[in-house]
Amino acid sequence: MKRALIPVVLVMLLSTMAQAEPAAEEAAIIKVLRQSEAGWNAGDIPAYMNSYWRSADLRFASGGTVSYGWQPVLDRYLKRYPDQKTMGHLVFADLDVRLTGPDHALVFGSWRLVRANDEPHGLFTLVFQHFDAGWHIIHDHTSSAVE
Amino acid sequence: MKRALIPVVLVMLLSTMAQAEPAAEEAAIIKVLRQSEAGWNAGDIPAYMNSYWRSADLRFASGGTVSYGWQPVLDRYLKRYPDQKTMGHLVFADLDVRLTGPDHALVFGSWRLVRANDEPHGLFTLVFQHFDAGWHIIHDHTSSAVE
Repeated sequence: MKRALIPVVLVMLLSTMAQAEPAAEEAAIIKVLRQSEAGWNAGDIPAYMNSYWRSADLRFASGGTVSYGWQPVLDRYLKRYPDQKTMGHLVFADLDVRLTGPDHALVFGSWRLVRANDEPHGLFTLVFQHFDAGWHIIHDHTSSAVE
Repeated sequence: MKRALIPVVLVMLLSTMAQAEPAAEEAAIIKVLRQSEAGWNAGDIPAYMNSYWRSADLRFASGGTVSYGWQPVLDRYLKRYPDQKTMGHLVFADLDVRLTGPDHALVFGSWRLVRANDEPHGLFTLVFQHFDAGWHIIHDHTSSAVE
């Protein structure tokens, strides 16, 4: 009786582990995004940029423009948001994480900048990849709502 | 000598097959997009929509708006582009297909509508899935260049 139980318990344990893993990865990805959001809201664009792959192959598509590379994307943000007034308060919402493989995930979501005089907002589609150093965004496609 | 060659030939054959398959899948995906483009340019929006997953779960993100479902996306296009003058001539370019698994692919690209008085254009990020009926877009994120 006891010996027959071992495989059953093993199967239950393995199936629990198989289910727990994706939830843990999803939580890890959301944590990366929340830390990025917090960096922005502390007025620290390089901290915001920690969520991105620090590579020349990072791909960032926004509106009609594609930028490549971590440094050019950082420079673009620094130029576009020179002070905390233009940065406003960033809110990520509607986060929908979908693991597409052991090391890749797709994340849909929305962004909003709450500023004194306006609230630009829109959507993003992110491709995350898992590296030794954790999950990072390798592709970002961001769009803005046309008011 | 002959017997030793068999495993070598087998490995070469399998590696050729493994390489050939992604190229064939990429070509199949590009064909779906070219047929869609041709449908648009024939003034036939439903033909254009054949590239999309005919499901209520189709996800279409544009600017700041997310639409779900094949029929609502079709209705949105029909409303927004009521005649061939507004439809113009569609050009897909910079197509970059990346297979992310046996049944999934990510496609980056740009779009341009050549019309009499303007040329709206922008970028897209597509997630394709392979079904029994072939490859279809299951997620579309489209953005427009701000002129």
